[in-house]
Amino acid sequence: MDNHTIRGFERYGVWQPERTGILLIDPYNDFLHPDGKSYFKSKEVIEGVHLLDNMKRVINTARALSIQVFYVPHHRAEPTDYDHWKYPTTTQLGTKERQVFAKGSWGGSFHDDFQPQPEDIIIKEHWSQSGFANTDLDLQLKQHNIDRIILIGMLANTCLESTGRFGMELGYHITLVRDASAANTWEMMHAAHDLNGPTFAHAILTSEELVDILNGKPVPASEK
Amino acid sequence: MDNHTIRGFERYGVWQPERTGILLIDPYNDFLHPDGKSYFKSKEVIEGVHLLDNMKRVINTARALSIQVFYVPHHRAEPTDYDHWKYPTTTQLGTKERQVFAKGSWGGSFHDDFQPQPEDIIIKEHWSQSGFANTDLDLQLKQHNIDRIILIGMLANTCLESTGRFGMELGYHITLVRDASAANTWEMMHAAHDLNGPTFAHAILTSEELVDILNGKPVPASEK
Amino acid sequence: MDNHTIRGFERYGVWQPERTGILLIDPYNDFLHPDGKSYFKSKEVIEGVHLLDNMKRVINTARALSIQVFYVPHHRAEPTDYDHWKYPTTTQLGTKERQVFAKGSWGGSFHDDFQPQPEDIIIKEHWSQSGFANTDLDLQLKQHNIDRIILIGMLANTCLESTGRFGMELGYHITLVRDASAANTWEMMHAAHDLNGPTFAHAILTSEELVDILNGKPVPASEK
Amino acid sequence: MDNHTIRGFERYGVWQPERTGILLIDPYNDFLHPDGKSYFKSKEVIEGVHLLDNMKRVINTARALSIQVFYVPHHRAEPTDYDHWKYPTTTQLGTKERQVFAKGSWGGSFHDDFQPQPEDIIIKEHWSQSGFANTDLDLQLKQHNIDRIILIGMLANTCLESTGRFGMELGYHITLVRDASAANTWEMMHAAHDLNGPTFAHAILTSEELVDILNGKPVPASEK
Repeated sequence: MDNHTIRGFERYGVWQPERTGILLIDPYNDFLHPDGKSYFKSKEVIEGVHLLDNMKRVINTARALSIQVFYVPHHRAEPTDYDHWKYPTTTQLGTKERQVFAKGSWGGSFHDDFQPQPEDIIIKEHWSQSGFANTDLDLQLKQHNIDRIILIGMLANTCLESTGRFGMELGYHITLVRDASAANTWEMMHAAHDLNGPTFAHAILTSEELVDILNGKPVPASEK
Repeated sequence: MDNHTIRGFERYGVWQPERTGILLIDPYNDFLHPDGKSYFKSKEVIEGVHLLDNMKRVINTARALSIQVFYVPHHRAEPTDYDHWKYPTTTQLGTKERQVFAKGSWGGSFHDDFQPQPEDIIIKEHWSQSGFANTDLDLQLKQHNIDRIILIGMLANTCLESTGRFGMELGYHITLVRDASAANTWEMMHAAHDLNGPTFAHAILTSEELVDILNGKPVPASEK
Repeated sequence: MDNHTIRGFERYGVWQPERTGILLIDPYNDFLHPDGKSYFKSKEVIEGVHLLDNMKRVINTARALSIQVFYVPHHRAEPTDYDHWKYPTTTQLGTKERQVFAKGSWGGSFHDDFQPQPEDIIIKEHWSQSGFANTDLDLQLKQHNIDRIILIGMLANTCLESTGRFGMELGYHITLVRDASAANTWEMMHAAHDLNGPTFAHAILTSEELVDILNGKPVPASEK
Repeated sequence: MDNHTIRGFERYGVWQPERTGILLIDPYNDFLHPDGKSYFKSKEVIEGVHLLDNMKRVINTARALSIQVFYVPHHRAEPTDYDHWKYPTTTQLGTKERQVFAKGSWGGSFHDDFQPQPEDIIIKEHWSQSGFANTDLDLQLKQHNIDRIILIGMLANTCLESTGRFGMELGYHITLVRDASAANTWEMMHAAHDLNGPTFAHAILTSEELVDILNGKPVPASEK
């Protein structure tokens, strides 16, 4: 565990399950299933970090500890998207063109391994990267008395990073999980977790480290 | 000019001066002056991109074209900062410890080359990275009828990137200027402009390219 | 027309159709149809101001002038709403109890006279009063280049007033239409349009006055 | 105590001091001192409710119980305010014209009875009515772990009401204090506390009732 994170635990303490939320970001077939439209882009990283196993492990631990799970889904594509927008991004236009996460499609459905349970909360769809922007995520977190969020899902340097950056500005404690997210390249993973992550996230660690600490394992001591 | 940016001009047109704003982010002595507290961290990049010359060139062009300039300043440090906050970031605690941009100090003053003019607008200080978070930046842009923002200043991968990410989510057209910002390492510059920038920014170009187009030079044609 | 509004036209000019949006707030059967669950509460005012006729007249004029129409719908009730919220309001709990605007129900459907057309934009559902809070309304207005909003629908002193108050803080020009909204009592109408409206709205007028000016009739001169 | 408020206590419990904040809104000489520029407008209500005595009583009780006090100040007027804004409100233009709460003036200073103490937090100035809009109020409340806010100061139907409406949408528990705020007319007080307040506030009571409950007096039982 890096010193940034260890010192964070010394300062902020560890997660209290009842004040912590898991944000499951964009767990769509198009991202996570080998037959999904965007899988090929991140295939190397997804498989390299064992993404699905780690996401499942984090979610299972969360459910066992009654940590609230929030689905944070991207806008489902429709053919008329952005037709009259002034400034859609290149990514939005590309997603529309390819109808990634198309509304009502298999690709725009949640992956079988990540089906919502009755007690989960589904946040409104976000239009671009941040799960907080133009949605009810902040309200739902507040109404559930949650002040720490753990971000998992896709993609590390876009939706997760923007959600983390926004969440920090809103006052939340932010946790990134190195191998429970993926990106299109290893360089983007490095940027998300090693270059930018430490500037806004309070803890950056592996799924194993996260699960161990949630389960009560002591935090290692920081280097002197 | 990269194809991302050229195609952007084809889609969105070029900047109209009266609907464009320059965001001058954190132009403090502590960042920009060789005697400033944080200069040494970014010295190699600042000098490598000729940051001050390029910032001046962009600002001068903006003033000549009556493009509105907005100062977007970071919180000025005070000794009691964050004393009772739950989740200040490591960066905030470090900035407090070293009293970077200290209130009332030379380091927390704007660099001599970037003194506000009477017609400039000073946005409220931001607490962390995004110039939009917890400030009146969005309101001021709206009240001035501005829908495109050009981001210059410090640092490329933190304040500029977060301000760009937030601005995009709010519906603004975002321009990044490769050599009118700096970061602590070249790798961070690469992450800001080549890895992440294209996912949220509508134009990413050099100061020279920006100034040329603002002055009416035709945009190059995109590759077929 | 009151002097507040007339002087407003002198200051701000009249609406440009391409920069104006109509916000049609909560046009549900439960509010607007005599068989709706909440109709009886506002029946006297609805019928007294000829609400449906005036709403139709405003919408028809808007469509004829290509003014963009936005549906701004309240959350559709579900049986488990607010089960784990800390601080739902009395109104939210009452709405849940009575399942007003129930998801999938006739009461939670738009009134026959106010069916969305293909070019209309449906904003995400709001949880309480303000159409801006926790939704994409601000983003959609910006992406459509709109800086003035005309508010019609239900209720004058709750959803319309909060949407107007929020919109003003975000920098929009706000228009209230006295007889194209209703409330539970005449006293609440008076509070919305005569006591509070002038503190945040830029124009407060009747449907007839609104339609006339949209159609090009000159604005009356202000009293000297 | 009205039934709305009593049932609220049954639902939400009473205030925990460490999770509660007092918002002291616009306690300027221009509002609160007989020589202030706007005192005459609200004089009848200010004196009728014994505003200053009640505000002091609430603040003193808060300090005794270590309830965090937040100053929520209106923008201090400057001569060039709004010169290039598209849509300033009538109130903003009037305030500028009369230079109410002028920057650096006695009228724009806090009243002698409401001087900030070292442990108080001063929120950024708001431009119009809501203390949340374009400021760091939400962030500061979150960082101090506060989820309930008690609003006192000026004016009941503008700044307090908008701050309460915004706070509710953000997930906070809202308390209004009938005689620790004032307005220009009694009719406006009635609108703020009896017509609109119950639609967004969780508790609406007198200073005496508030202080008693904060000091541990049992809440009365609701009517059957």
